[in-house]
Amino acid sequence: MHDFLALAEHLAQISGAIILRYFRSGVAVDDKADGSPVTAADREAEAAMRAAITAAFPWHGIIGEEYGYERPDAEYVWTLDPIDGTKSFVTGSFLFSTLIGLLWRGRPMLGVLHHPLTGHLLIGDGRQARLNGQPVHVRPCARLEDAVLLASSHTSVARYENGEAYDALTRRVRFYRTWGDGHGYFLLATGYADIMADPIMWLWDVAPLIPIVEGAGGRITSWRGGPVFESVERVLAAGTSAVATAGGLHDAVIAALNPPAS
Amino acid sequence: MHDFLALAEHLAQISGAIILRYFRSGVAVDDKADGSPVTAADREAEAAMRAAITAAFPWHGIIGEEYGYERPDAEYVWTLDPIDGTKSFVTGSFLFSTLIGLLWRGRPMLGVLHHPLTGHLLIGDGRQARLNGQPVHVRPCARLEDAVLLASSHTSVARYENGEAYDALTRRVRFYRTWGDGHGYFLLATGYADIMADPIMWLWDVAPLIPIVEGAGGRITSWRGGPVFESVERVLAAGTSAVATAGGLHDAVIAALNPPAS
Repeated sequence: MHDFLALAEHLAQISGAIILRYFRSGVAVDDKADGSPVTAADREAEAAMRAAITAAFPWHGIIGEEYGYERPDAEYVWTLDPIDGTKSFVTGSFLFSTLIGLLWRGRPMLGVLHHPLTGHLLIGDGRQARLNGQPVHVRPCARLEDAVLLASSHTSVARYENGEAYDALTRRVRFYRTWGDGHGYFLLATGYADIMADPIMWLWDVAPLIPIVEGAGGRITSWRGGPVFESVERVLAAGTSAVATAGGLHDAVIAALNPPAS
Repeated sequence: MHDFLALAEHLAQISGAIILRYFRSGVAVDDKADGSPVTAADREAEAAMRAAITAAFPWHGIIGEEYGYERPDAEYVWTLDPIDGTKSFVTGSFLFSTLIGLLWRGRPMLGVLHHPLTGHLLIGDGRQARLNGQPVHVRPCARLEDAVLLASSHTSVARYENGEAYDALTRRVRFYRTWGDGHGYFLLATGYADIMADPIMWLWDVAPLIPIVEGAGGRITSWRGGPVFESVERVLAAGTSAVATAGGLHDAVIAALNPPAS
């Protein structure tokens, strides 16, 4: 486990050094364009992390967004997302991060969230979470009316889930912002926010965040309150929704997001 | 002017060093509480900037949120907002900034926006804008459907302006996030976003941003398309709304936000 942690931290540093060279290096209006800075940064960082994993543990598997799968049936499989929060990166904003996960027999066992711009390195293993080495915990919150709600996107919720129920929740909580993607889970896990909601996530987004949120003492489920990570195959094929809280509020949040059909 | 610029940069550095000591120093659930880290940071930073201004130009006026007015009728008056984006600061997120303005005979003549966490220092004088010394410009955008729209808050718009028209605009643009307060104008002025909208701003928020946005080649008006800064007295008493764009889209944005009553 110590070796895995050391490698995970090393991967975060490798990725961060590369993507910072591309951040705000030019106006990128299209994050899907092959020649865009974000695509170049993503590919270069993922390739560098793959090389480092293969050098350290050649029998481990790797799943990344840019270069696909290597040995996905291995006992240990790394998931790589060099730039989580691509929209933040291309908009020149500060909320993007690098997400690195380690699966053991198909279950998330270790997660790393790194904000290269600020040096915040958050690591969780499902039992604990540490920010730059210091233990962190979610904070208690008992009422929706007192909660800080974060989300990755406002307008995309209605495409996947009950948009009206979601809008009602945004008006009910104390404070709502789209400070999302990995950054929203970072704020939740370190005790600065109470609810983080995502209608759609992919394997490399969600896998690292589960051991982080649970390690910080929080709960993470699907939007309906079910398991957020049924299996690698399932999440790879269809993605998943995710709602994370400190726990006490969780059932109330799930109920608010899924009102009975009228 | 050179001396003013040097002082403005110095103030930003003073403020940044102080507020970073308080950032993420503890869980602050109430930004209005007197003993909260954000209040302590705000007061200490504003006091330090006031002392530096008074040492350099004892005849200049000062207007700040925490300590009120000194010589507000002076020919030159500084406006101080050590932590713009207080909600970001207390939520442990990265989008807060320091805003410093200089008024000449009641008109904004110089603005400074400093992100102490990342070192981005943006200065505008109405004719040009520079980010860490390099000229920056807004980017062209011809259609609402291609625009990146930013705002400080989603849920508070309806309290001040036409919430339905605003919601419709958020669904019409290409991309929408609440990456706001000064940070949204930073992204606009440096060519990474197309529209920044605020239903309510105060003197120390808006005064520095006008020379920055206009210096970068953009337009900034009230939500209705009128002047954003009628007078110091008016803005002090009632605040103002603000909408900033690169210019080409401006009339379309104002029209979308103010539909004819049906």
